Amino acid sequence: MKATAKAHTNIALIKYWGKRDESLILPMNNSLSLTLDGFYTETTVAFNHDLTEDIFYLDHEQISGEQFTKVSTFLDLIRSYANRPGLFAEVRSINAVPTAAGFASSASGFAALAAAATRALDLSIDDRTLSRLTRRGSGSACRSIYGGFVEWEKGSKDDGSDSFAVPVAPQKHWDVRVAAVVLSSDKKKVSSRVGMKRTVETSLFYTSWVDNIPTDLKNIKSAIQDRDFERMGEIAEANCQKMHATTLGATPPFTYWHDTTLTVMQTVQALRTNGIPAYFTIDAGPNVKVLYQPENEEVIQETLRKIPGVTNVIVSRSGQGVTYQ
Amino acid sequence: MKATAKAHTNIALIKYWGKRDESLILPMNNSLSLTLDGFYTETTVAFNHDLTEDIFYLDHEQISGEQFTKVSTFLDLIRSYANRPGLFAEVRSINAVPTAAGFASSASGFAALAAAATRALDLSIDDRTLSRLTRRGSGSACRSIYGGFVEWEKGSKDDGSDSFAVPVAPQKHWDVRVAAVVLSSDKKKVSSRVGMKRTVETSLFYTSWVDNIPTDLKNIKSAIQDRDFERMGEIAEANCQKMHATTLGATPPFTYWHDTTLTVMQTVQALRTNGIPAYFTIDAGPNVKVLYQPENEEVIQETLRKIPGVTNVIVSRSGQGVTYQ
Repeated sequence: MKATAKAHTNIALIKYWGKRDESLILPMNNSLSLTLDGFYTETTVAFNHDLTEDIFYLDHEQISGEQFTKVSTFLDLIRSYANRPGLFAEVRSINAVPTAAGFASSASGFAALAAAATRALDLSIDDRTLSRLTRRGSGSACRSIYGGFVEWEKGSKDDGSDSFAVPVAPQKHWDVRVAAVVLSSDKKKVSSRVGMKRTVETSLFYTSWVDNIPTDLKNIKSAIQDRDFERMGEIAEANCQKMHATTLGATPPFTYWHDTTLTVMQTVQALRTNGIPAYFTIDAGPNVKVLYQPENEEVIQETLRKIPGVTNVIVSRSGQGVTYQ
Repeated sequence: MKATAKAHTNIALIKYWGKRDESLILPMNNSLSLTLDGFYTETTVAFNHDLTEDIFYLDHEQISGEQFTKVSTFLDLIRSYANRPGLFAEVRSINAVPTAAGFASSASGFAALAAAATRALDLSIDDRTLSRLTRRGSGSACRSIYGGFVEWEKGSKDDGSDSFAVPVAPQKHWDVRVAAVVLSSDKKKVSSRVGMKRTVETSLFYTSWVDNIPTDLKNIKSAIQDRDFERMGEIAEANCQKMHATTLGATPPFTYWHDTTLTVMQTVQALRTNGIPAYFTIDAGPNVKVLYQPENEEVIQETLRKIPGVTNVIVSRSGQGVTYQ
């Protein structure tokens, strides 16, 4: 009745941007990510007949409030799936995802929680089912079940039974690096959830965004298969800019970018002009992630660290999927 | 055979973004602008039978090369219209449009040139015809024929005969101010002409941009009629963000924004949060123009001048149309 699992976060190269069902967390479009070895959550779930409610410790501290409710609500889903009502658990998580890096710790967090909880209950489920369950905790978490390059298939069914992630290329397929460029910025003003919703409901450009996804996906999967770094980077960088364009077409318009975001974007483009292949991608916040190849690690780090307004640069490699202890 | 005319530049609140005919300068969408009193060109055209070619002085300096060719080619158009082939002119222009302010001096420049040249030839033409002729020199110049708020009707004919500007509200209708915020930036990398063309030909979002223009125009004209500053500002600010979104959807994507552009945008939005109605608009470059009302002139200027990276703030009022000496 006890199990420990570790899961890594992931960075989307083709962005998940917009839900078609808020409560089941069903996306409007397929997305594609790279799992990152630098950022992970390790979680132990111990079900116990003596407990009268769930208990959640994050980094050795007991958590209540909204964060606890999310975990407990997710365990309800697992209990329901396993047909074990009333069986509560103690959950202990260690987060190795610096919040300030602008990565959603919810991705590694819910992937590790789902894996540990299902293993603790000895459920024999395949990765797709695990991914599908994980999705209900946090959308992008469903991609963290696998290592390497991963696609989240949006599915078409109303019940979400065909909305889960599948592997595209394993961790060892290709040594691509990602530098997380951390900015000295305020907390973002529009959350991803609110930003997505406003974009889906009001953006002039949202339909075009959705319609274009199959093209971007087909092209990036072919670039990944061919290990064509420049082609992959170009598609990812363009896809992220299209995502951010949709927010400028919303009512009211908004942007996640800050001044230094622009500086980092332009620095990356200047690196390319100087013969260093590097490409940026930006999620629903001001921080920038830079894709590069191992041979350029030094120049990339050095260049990014020098930018005024950049407080940290954290590098990561292609990571593995869920593992159990 | 000699006349002097003065014309002011203008700032588009609904942007001209994309040509349907490059050589006749026919736009894909209607646009709407405010003529500005702070920036103008004064031009004297003297036709002379003794001249064997045109001569062009700008700010007392004789001009050759591309700039001269543009002026002379425009005079060819006027000669052709007037049926006066082989009648050359001496053109003397004084530009009171600081290049660094990010205003196209071509708008006031071609409006003044068209007005002076047609007056020098004693052509009796109405404002619409003058606007139509001016358009061939520089698209947005056709709006500078009139003062106050002006709409450029794109027209639908292939020969451009129905593509000219018309007045929406005269200069005295409403005292709206514009602060041109000048940034310490490099020269822009993508010209308006090239940026428009790339956007029209490749942007995922361009069709949506064009389709939305009638709505934005209808709403802003109603706000101008009602002198509803906040409504006008909201529409203008949103329209400019939609225009800039189209460049992010182009192949390859690009942006005219710099780091300080973002800072100014966010400063303007923070002013609103603090109860000061102010709205930004941005053309095809990094500089920002801020719309405000006379009672807030001091706080606007003070706030904008304090932003690091801002080198100058130049304020302007609603200006008049073409005048003759």
